[in-house]
Amino acid sequence: MNAEAVAPQNSSLGEEIAARINELAAISETPDHLARVFLTPEHRAAANLILSWMRAAGMRAHVDAIGNVCGRYEGQASGMPCLMLGSHYDTVRDAGKWDGPLGIVTAISCVAELNRSGRRLPFAIEVTGFADEEGVRFASTLLGSRAIAGTFDESVLGKADTAGVTMRNALISFGLDPDHVGRAARTRGELLAYVELHIEQGPVLEGMNLPLGVVTAISGATRLAARLTGMAGHAGTVPMKQRKDALAGAAECIGAIEQFCRTDEAGLVGTVGYIHAAPGATNVIPGQVSFTIDIRAPGDAHRKRAVTDMVRQIETIARRRDLTLQLDVTHENRSVPCANWLKGQIADAIAGEGYRVLELPSGAGHDGMAMIDIADVGMIFVRCRGGISHHPDEHVDTADVDAGARALLRMIENFRPRDIAQ
Amino acid sequence: MNAEAVAPQNSSLGEEIAARINELAAISETPDHLARVFLTPEHRAAANLILSWMRAAGMRAHVDAIGNVCGRYEGQASGMPCLMLGSHYDTVRDAGKWDGPLGIVTAISCVAELNRSGRRLPFAIEVTGFADEEGVRFASTLLGSRAIAGTFDESVLGKADTAGVTMRNALISFGLDPDHVGRAARTRGELLAYVELHIEQGPVLEGMNLPLGVVTAISGATRLAARLTGMAGHAGTVPMKQRKDALAGAAECIGAIEQFCRTDEAGLVGTVGYIHAAPGATNVIPGQVSFTIDIRAPGDAHRKRAVTDMVRQIETIARRRDLTLQLDVTHENRSVPCANWLKGQIADAIAGEGYRVLELPSGAGHDGMAMIDIADVGMIFVRCRGGISHHPDEHVDTADVDAGARALLRMIENFRPRDIAQ
Repeated sequence: MNAEAVAPQNSSLGEEIAARINELAAISETPDHLARVFLTPEHRAAANLILSWMRAAGMRAHVDAIGNVCGRYEGQASGMPCLMLGSHYDTVRDAGKWDGPLGIVTAISCVAELNRSGRRLPFAIEVTGFADEEGVRFASTLLGSRAIAGTFDESVLGKADTAGVTMRNALISFGLDPDHVGRAARTRGELLAYVELHIEQGPVLEGMNLPLGVVTAISGATRLAARLTGMAGHAGTVPMKQRKDALAGAAECIGAIEQFCRTDEAGLVGTVGYIHAAPGATNVIPGQVSFTIDIRAPGDAHRKRAVTDMVRQIETIARRRDLTLQLDVTHENRSVPCANWLKGQIADAIAGEGYRVLELPSGAGHDGMAMIDIADVGMIFVRCRGGISHHPDEHVDTADVDAGARALLRMIENFRPRDIAQ
Repeated sequence: MNAEAVAPQNSSLGEEIAARINELAAISETPDHLARVFLTPEHRAAANLILSWMRAAGMRAHVDAIGNVCGRYEGQASGMPCLMLGSHYDTVRDAGKWDGPLGIVTAISCVAELNRSGRRLPFAIEVTGFADEEGVRFASTLLGSRAIAGTFDESVLGKADTAGVTMRNALISFGLDPDHVGRAARTRGELLAYVELHIEQGPVLEGMNLPLGVVTAISGATRLAARLTGMAGHAGTVPMKQRKDALAGAAECIGAIEQFCRTDEAGLVGTVGYIHAAPGATNVIPGQVSFTIDIRAPGDAHRKRAVTDMVRQIETIARRRDLTLQLDVTHENRSVPCANWLKGQIADAIAGEGYRVLELPSGAGHDGMAMIDIADVGMIFVRCRGGISHHPDEHVDTADVDAGARALLRMIENFRPRDIAQ
């Protein structure tokens, strides 16, 4: 019998979770498109709904100093260190409804299962709904998890949104004290681990016909801004061999980046997402082209080597074509590896549910990137249709939601903290 | 002695012409940037200045029914067929001062030379300052020369400029009757040939260290609009081999077009001047890319074959990458070959001035494209610095202006009409 073909025997968890995802999705800035950004009234309404679910699941729950929704289910004794679960409840604009909420709602349903049968484990469980992961409103990401990790940068409090409202004032409107954000911070001793369930936001699980995956690492990323300058000219009068066509040069660079990444075997991806050719007229040879490069890999050393190699190729192309190259690193973040001991326990839980275990990196960022500073991190990915995310078409089958919940519950039930596991 | 190194013995013609180019350049819509578009007050002021120069050169002169400035220097008898010389006196916006006016002013100076010595030739000479070649105001080009060739499309009279003024009303403001544009038309029997002197607007003559060139043909052009549609996706989560990256596909097409044209030996040029990638974010794989393709060649059959071959390559790239391709021809115009007998007489004149004769195609459009319908066409190119045109940096050395004027004068003095020449 094919392991992938095992059907869930009882889909009640999946159905409960999917219904709550729909309830949360109805709380939006705009009725037609889902948008729920940091510290808005709908953000507060979503927090209240999550609080109510946490309490119904037998947890103590409150909103912390940055707006995170924090629920705690005590272990066999009060005040034990916790296994923290969670994800974020803010969204991008015109979002899908699964990105973030699925991890919060699934964790609450798992705690509710334990609570229904009156079970207490030898550790506490905390569920965190992080207030801001996407960073839409203030162009600064991971605000909720950074506050909990104690790495919140207080200087961002002065940042204003597009309407001119500062984060400081937005916190006050939300009912929080901007001078007390530091109180959200937790310490390493309080957490046994941080484990997040999230939709994959990519097509790998679907391509492998698997509902779940074990995340190996949150890929690090380097973003570069490139500008090639040649010589604009009349599209009819300059012979091919006398041209310094910046767009032809950029096209060669794009081809080289794609080729380099396609032949890599270690999860490297490279994307040119933005390009602008000036002057940009049909009958004028482009004199200057700007484009961005986004390079990600699960391993930092591998990514850095790849960036160096690709930059060298781009420099060679520019030199051969007599184009001036300006190339700047605009963003860089390290890879966050998932802890081996957590990967093992997640893999056991997935296998225990009858599914083949697939390990894959996360090319997208997650709250674990901040949580790594105070806890080992593990992640479970759930298949999403077509790999589509940050789009209204984002979709997870209820059977897969259920599979994710059962695997997470099994992982919780069998959880052994690191010092016991190793 | 190297022929290219021969210095002009007397630069008075060049100096007179350069001074007049500066006088015309002062007549502009905006003081900082040269702009003189069809049927504006400054267009009328320029026409009046050209009329005065024509009359001073011994010509009868008038403004015709579309705004062309027409001067006539009779031959040995009154009413003889003419050799028509000329170019356009409208400009693009933020123009150079040489593109167009040089051909008018040089022709007038040549006539003035004949007139000074009282010489009459066995044919009349007409100089035409075409009213609109650039087509800036009403997005329709060659209005002046089409009116003379009898191919003016009356439907364009209803077109409005960006301020909402129709061409019909603009003609009335200029002092012309829009119902009588047809009166500008001339007939084949009245013209022995049409010969235009114009700046090259490209870098070929400069690269060959030559002041003058013989134009072989005004290249025909095909313009296409291409759209490649793949699948947008997260730059971090979609593995390279699962991508349908529309920009990577477009880059391969741009490379193929460049490669195809670079290896052509018959003057083919291909340009992608405009590109737009959507959604256009650093961290999103482009799902759709639009770009333009401009293909030109001196020979129509050659260009059409090349377009067919390149379209086939683009189709193959799209198919292999599983991208949807939409490709439309947005513009097409035939090549206008210069008459062999005129090329020969122009070449003789250039050689007679001591310069090596170089033949080259014109990749840019000119009034000859319309005049071909009523006359054989010849063109002389004058070197311009860096090949730069349609830009304030457009520049012609006075020595080259002089060389052009002397060659044109020599060509006029030795001109033999076709039935005698052949």
